Amino acid sequence: MRVGVIGGGQLARMMVPPAVALGIEIRVLAEAEGMSAEIAATAVGDYRDAATVLSFASDVDVVTFDHEHVPQPVLTELGERGVSVHPGPEPLAVAQDKLWMRERLTQLGAPVPDWAAVHDEAELADFLAAHGGAAVVKTPRGGYDGKGVRVVRSADAVADWFAVVDEHASGGALLVEELVDFRRELAQLVARRPSGELAAWPLVETVQRDGVCAEVTAPAPGASVELVAEAAALAESIATGLGVTGVLAVELFETADGRLLVNELAMRPHNTGHWTIDGCVTSQFEQHLRAVLDLPLGATTPHAAWSVMVNVLGGPVGASMPERYAGALAAEPGVKFHSYGKPSRPGRKVGHVTAVGDDLEAVRARARAAAGFFEG
Amino acid sequence: MRVGVIGGGQLARMMVPPAVALGIEIRVLAEAEGMSAEIAATAVGDYRDAATVLSFASDVDVVTFDHEHVPQPVLTELGERGVSVHPGPEPLAVAQDKLWMRERLTQLGAPVPDWAAVHDEAELADFLAAHGGAAVVKTPRGGYDGKGVRVVRSADAVADWFAVVDEHASGGALLVEELVDFRRELAQLVARRPSGELAAWPLVETVQRDGVCAEVTAPAPGASVELVAEAAALAESIATGLGVTGVLAVELFETADGRLLVNELAMRPHNTGHWTIDGCVTSQFEQHLRAVLDLPLGATTPHAAWSVMVNVLGGPVGASMPERYAGALAAEPGVKFHSYGKPSRPGRKVGHVTAVGDDLEAVRARARAAAGFFEG
Repeated sequence: MRVGVIGGGQLARMMVPPAVALGIEIRVLAEAEGMSAEIAATAVGDYRDAATVLSFASDVDVVTFDHEHVPQPVLTELGERGVSVHPGPEPLAVAQDKLWMRERLTQLGAPVPDWAAVHDEAELADFLAAHGGAAVVKTPRGGYDGKGVRVVRSADAVADWFAVVDEHASGGALLVEELVDFRRELAQLVARRPSGELAAWPLVETVQRDGVCAEVTAPAPGASVELVAEAAALAESIATGLGVTGVLAVELFETADGRLLVNELAMRPHNTGHWTIDGCVTSQFEQHLRAVLDLPLGATTPHAAWSVMVNVLGGPVGASMPERYAGALAAEPGVKFHSYGKPSRPGRKVGHVTAVGDDLEAVRARARAAAGFFEG
Repeated sequence: MRVGVIGGGQLARMMVPPAVALGIEIRVLAEAEGMSAEIAATAVGDYRDAATVLSFASDVDVVTFDHEHVPQPVLTELGERGVSVHPGPEPLAVAQDKLWMRERLTQLGAPVPDWAAVHDEAELADFLAAHGGAAVVKTPRGGYDGKGVRVVRSADAVADWFAVVDEHASGGALLVEELVDFRRELAQLVARRPSGELAAWPLVETVQRDGVCAEVTAPAPGASVELVAEAAALAESIATGLGVTGVLAVELFETADGRLLVNELAMRPHNTGHWTIDGCVTSQFEQHLRAVLDLPLGATTPHAAWSVMVNVLGGPVGASMPERYAGALAAEPGVKFHSYGKPSRPGRKVGHVTAVGDDLEAVRARARAAAGFFEG
């Protein structure tokens, strides 16, 4: 059994341990030498080049992804050559274009913020007028970790984006959404096999800082049984409705009045699921491999009442996480440390830590203290 | 941080996931192409050849082992070149020679079965006469998984070994031990850093079949607080007394009258500790890496009340574990499956499964059922 992963980042890297455990051969097409998933990189090349990707795919049983950026023509050509690709081109098209994502979610009846495709400042001004004078504008393509997202209060605030809208827009438009009055952000992860089996992890609470995931608490504290069931059913209906295979992450707003709205989708293992490596019987990375190979899914039972994951962001240039282990490991022997094998840069995700236990405040304190060793 | 592992078997393979997680670069000197630890193999060569080993060791921070068979002259030469080697030549000499092991354990005051070095049938006959006419004879070197071990009731039962005794004996002798009347077999694993820190896992019960580890239950059912404390103290005193660095496995007999006797030592991750991958906060493989790098040791807390590991032995030639996953994973979604990436052969250890939970009988039944999918 051989899985080919396109992209050599930390998500591909974190698929390696479960692949080794299960005896699944994993091969990575990396963007460059020395990437995070180096240990499994069997090819280096441009994922936008059909010949490179086809060559890489020629001797694996299934192709999957570290990211959602492989162009549709390349995906289509893989399909035409009979390569098994999970997730497939259709669901990936939804992940690649935020306007198309809103369109498809609306078609599926999923609750989403009010939204519109706006082609110019006049259309944006109309949307702002109808939504209390504030909104969120997003470039349909190419955004991540807060990039390509802007809160606006006047129609000229994204003039620079309108000026180049054809470059990153589908249909020459930007996406505008209501500024949701949310109580907190949640995430629901689910895995789906091609044959249809689904498995959901517990609903989690996420804290974002500057548009980047900073901390995840599992399960979401204080979530009612109804909210938990609603989130799982919503993610499962989206996975099935869009035909997603592998892991689907549904980022959610819990509104001030207690409703769930879908914020974003990711069709791959996701930062909000890193806690599952140490906190669950089956991690999102193992489950993704099982799902794309159409193997039976594993139990998503947590090991303990609470897990808290804290991202390690940057730190001083040049100091790697392992160079700072002596103090961190001694102080927090029960915390699990994950380094992505990347040179440190301020603000860059270079690793994460997870604490697991039965007392939420203690678990959170341990995770934060452990992550703190790698700051500044 | 770069660890070099000599030997490409499943123990080296199972060091890969924690190395990837911690961001420790792992390099393996494998005996051949296509070994179990292939994904991390950066060199292929003979571990008995000093030049090969020195070349491999030249750009790693520490050298450790998948097995204990690297010859003393090679280990000595590594030390002379300033290579950090864990465990070091002195403790490894104890693991390499069962007569020397008995000698050193006796010096340390560790409880061991009655034993003697016997040079000929006359000496063996004397030992048999003094021990009720039955004993266990072992070749001091080269035995594993029941090989090189024979229960004898007459002095001519190992005539073939005496005929070639110089080839595998230290001092031209075989080891003879009393046939211990034991209630069960136990194992105590402990890790030790060069700077002295120790960490012990829970005492486990092991079941051997035909001299091969078949099943491990953690913790050892019904073990008294005193027995548990005695086992941990014993393993810690042996680790410290012998200067072991990394993981030390102490295989024990619990005698019919409730005493502990040391059966064997292994100075590396050990089959009786495989359950820690899925059953503990820190696995024996992660702990071994931390220990040999002299990093602070992790918590050995179990995830649940019980873990049961069952080895997957052989099965029909050619059918790999992954080829049989469809049924096994569907039937046991909560069991963790480990394949060593080896072609199957009857009786060969090709993988293991671990179940974890709060009800021992249920956990054991799940582990056995899961392993059963790969038999016959």
